[in-house]
Amino acid sequence: MRAVDLIRRKRDGGELTAAEIRFLIGGIATGEVPDYQWSALTMAILWRGMTPVETAALVDAMLHSGTVVDLSDIPGPKVDKHSTGGVGDKTSLILAPVAAACGVTVPMVSGRGLGHTGGTLDKLESIPGFCVDLDLDAYRRIARDCGLVLIGQTAEIAPADRVLYALRDATATVESIPLITASILSKKLAEGIDGLVLDVKTGDGAFMATHEDARTLAESMTRIGRELGKPVQALITSMDAPLGRAVGNALEVQEAVECLQGRGPDDLMEVSLELAAEMLLLGGVAASRDEALAACRQSIADGSALDRFRRVIAAQGGDPRVCDDSEGVLPRAAVVEPFRAARSGYLARIRAWSVGQASMLLGAGRARVDSTIDHAAGILFRRTVGDAVQAGDVIAEIHVNPAHAAALPETLAMLDAATTVTDAPPRPRSRILERL
Amino acid sequence: MRAVDLIRRKRDGGELTAAEIRFLIGGIATGEVPDYQWSALTMAILWRGMTPVETAALVDAMLHSGTVVDLSDIPGPKVDKHSTGGVGDKTSLILAPVAAACGVTVPMVSGRGLGHTGGTLDKLESIPGFCVDLDLDAYRRIARDCGLVLIGQTAEIAPADRVLYALRDATATVESIPLITASILSKKLAEGIDGLVLDVKTGDGAFMATHEDARTLAESMTRIGRELGKPVQALITSMDAPLGRAVGNALEVQEAVECLQGRGPDDLMEVSLELAAEMLLLGGVAASRDEALAACRQSIADGSALDRFRRVIAAQGGDPRVCDDSEGVLPRAAVVEPFRAARSGYLARIRAWSVGQASMLLGAGRARVDSTIDHAAGILFRRTVGDAVQAGDVIAEIHVNPAHAAALPETLAMLDAATTVTDAPPRPRSRILERL
Repeated sequence: MRAVDLIRRKRDGGELTAAEIRFLIGGIATGEVPDYQWSALTMAILWRGMTPVETAALVDAMLHSGTVVDLSDIPGPKVDKHSTGGVGDKTSLILAPVAAACGVTVPMVSGRGLGHTGGTLDKLESIPGFCVDLDLDAYRRIARDCGLVLIGQTAEIAPADRVLYALRDATATVESIPLITASILSKKLAEGIDGLVLDVKTGDGAFMATHEDARTLAESMTRIGRELGKPVQALITSMDAPLGRAVGNALEVQEAVECLQGRGPDDLMEVSLELAAEMLLLGGVAASRDEALAACRQSIADGSALDRFRRVIAAQGGDPRVCDDSEGVLPRAAVVEPFRAARSGYLARIRAWSVGQASMLLGAGRARVDSTIDHAAGILFRRTVGDAVQAGDVIAEIHVNPAHAAALPETLAMLDAATTVTDAPPRPRSRILERL
Repeated sequence: MRAVDLIRRKRDGGELTAAEIRFLIGGIATGEVPDYQWSALTMAILWRGMTPVETAALVDAMLHSGTVVDLSDIPGPKVDKHSTGGVGDKTSLILAPVAAACGVTVPMVSGRGLGHTGGTLDKLESIPGFCVDLDLDAYRRIARDCGLVLIGQTAEIAPADRVLYALRDATATVESIPLITASILSKKLAEGIDGLVLDVKTGDGAFMATHEDARTLAESMTRIGRELGKPVQALITSMDAPLGRAVGNALEVQEAVECLQGRGPDDLMEVSLELAAEMLLLGGVAASRDEALAACRQSIADGSALDRFRRVIAAQGGDPRVCDDSEGVLPRAAVVEPFRAARSGYLARIRAWSVGQASMLLGAGRARVDSTIDHAAGILFRRTVGDAVQAGDVIAEIHVNPAHAAALPETLAMLDAATTVTDAPPRPRSRILERL
């Protein structure tokens, strides 16, 4: 078997067998298929696509390029959630404790933020002491003890994906549905889960700009997951505006805690609870969506979800008092600058992409993989879409430290361009656009 | 400027500027554009194509990735020929001395054989002592002294092409017309020539299997050459059958010498002289094709072409007596096995591709880049297409040394499958299919 012949077949629109795909993925580690052959192949795959059978074989080969964690000694269902990424998306910090409190173990391996989107690991690291770099033994132990665990990718999990992802990033081949499917599913299925809930975001601040693209990805993921015997349930949710009111790592942790305290904003609560409910249904601990939603709400009302969050923070070395006194524990920016409404009316739009870009200027996000992050920086909205505003009202607070204070004028201008105030109130819309 | 953005643009069918193409080619040497980015880009170019303006910029950038030889101190026109490769194609050994004898300097940089096709360097190296690895100083000196020089690629000539060619070979991106055009023209224009004659072969044993593909490549090459101010004249010639009667390195040198002695087979003489005539026309040393052809024939009749060959062989360290006593000087195989006609009739077809494959089995060609070659091995046809044969007549002699004698039965079977004997004589056809 020669890689060049397989590249040629895919280039010409042909299909690869599971054995051929295993050879290609196996060749990454052995060096038999060097990166320049894989990058040509990823371009051919982006061009010609892959059948569901090929994609499933690719997931399987990538999944088995490293350790597939066995969590079968932990009783009960193990379910994770994956989001395609957005602005202000801190749902993981809410739904994981909620699902754990409801009897679903959530062994979550997450990523870091890049560009205008944030990452769960960065948010968690704004909690003093919190460690996301745990080995698989600690991962198993904490998942068993707390019902949830929140770590970063380890070298053992789907190493082929790390190589391919870096190649795709450098060769403009990220946007291939089969390759995205394989990248996400191989990492998630290696966690040892029984099922996966997928939050495919669409809109201005999402990776999938159109609903149709989002549905194509969601359909691919659910289909391939099912082919591999791991149920995948997908929601398509709106990422036109930032989710919730906080954008920036410590600000988002504080908002997540408020959600677990029962004081969260409606849109963020809706998305978090709907996703958590799907996890309960996938895990078989609820018989209906209504029952699942009720159980999730109850875990917030009785404090059991917040207690799970407290326990996992402590288990991972973080300061659990963040669950009771967020402002006292989390880092705070030296400067808080108001962004005010220029006119009166209704806040009709807050463009997520621009807000993400603005928060990156403040140091809250990464322009490059190796950028450092200011956990305290970010943007906290005091008004949200649909609210009435008077000229001069504070729409948002800009939190910034001196190192990035020079970006304030540009940030203000970007927020001004990102927000639209209209005479009539906008039509209220659910964040949940579709359930696949 | 970031390579990934340029790959994305080409991937999406967009156009690259000359500055962007220079950046991409320049990045090969500096490492700024690593091989995995270039291989993804070659796949995107194969997919989306390149405009003539882009292709010309690519040729220009690759040409200037190394030394562009200046031969302006050699009086008179400098013209080279390039063939897309075939079986039994020894025209370079004939037309270069002929053109030199007619006043056109031929500074030829050639390649080696691979797969079923032979290479000029391998043929020359069957002449004892002949050295093809000369530096550019020797190249200039011999071109001036002899009117021709025949060397292999040097590290100074279009180094970007060497990197890209190896990548394309490994990533199934060889078959892109703009990339083929750029590869050939960048190397040839770096020789310091004023014009180029192109022999685009089509048919069974050619790289371009169909006449239409051959025309597309020929049109691309002539157009881009003209855009760069270097006239390119193309002939499309037939490679359905081996050219001439000899396939194999020493056997082909002997046949080339016979051609220069005025005793060559018709098809080989026709193609060699037509190509040489185009070189004279491009070089401006003949006013018409008839005049050019007459001058070429005269150079053979008066021995001046053979004398040029004798001189260049001596200048490059080879034994010039090959021009007078080929059989005595060239290596000869230990075994000569006849291949006989199974039935009587007319030899209607000799499939070039199969003959090339068969000669590779005998050790005359390379299955891989690092295969070694037996210069004495090969196949010498005693009958050619159109000849009447009786059952039992020797159609060809198989020349083989003991190391490859085990391949004889398979070679005989391949020749049997490669030849067709019919009751009626085939329609005579010119090898010259089109003049662009």
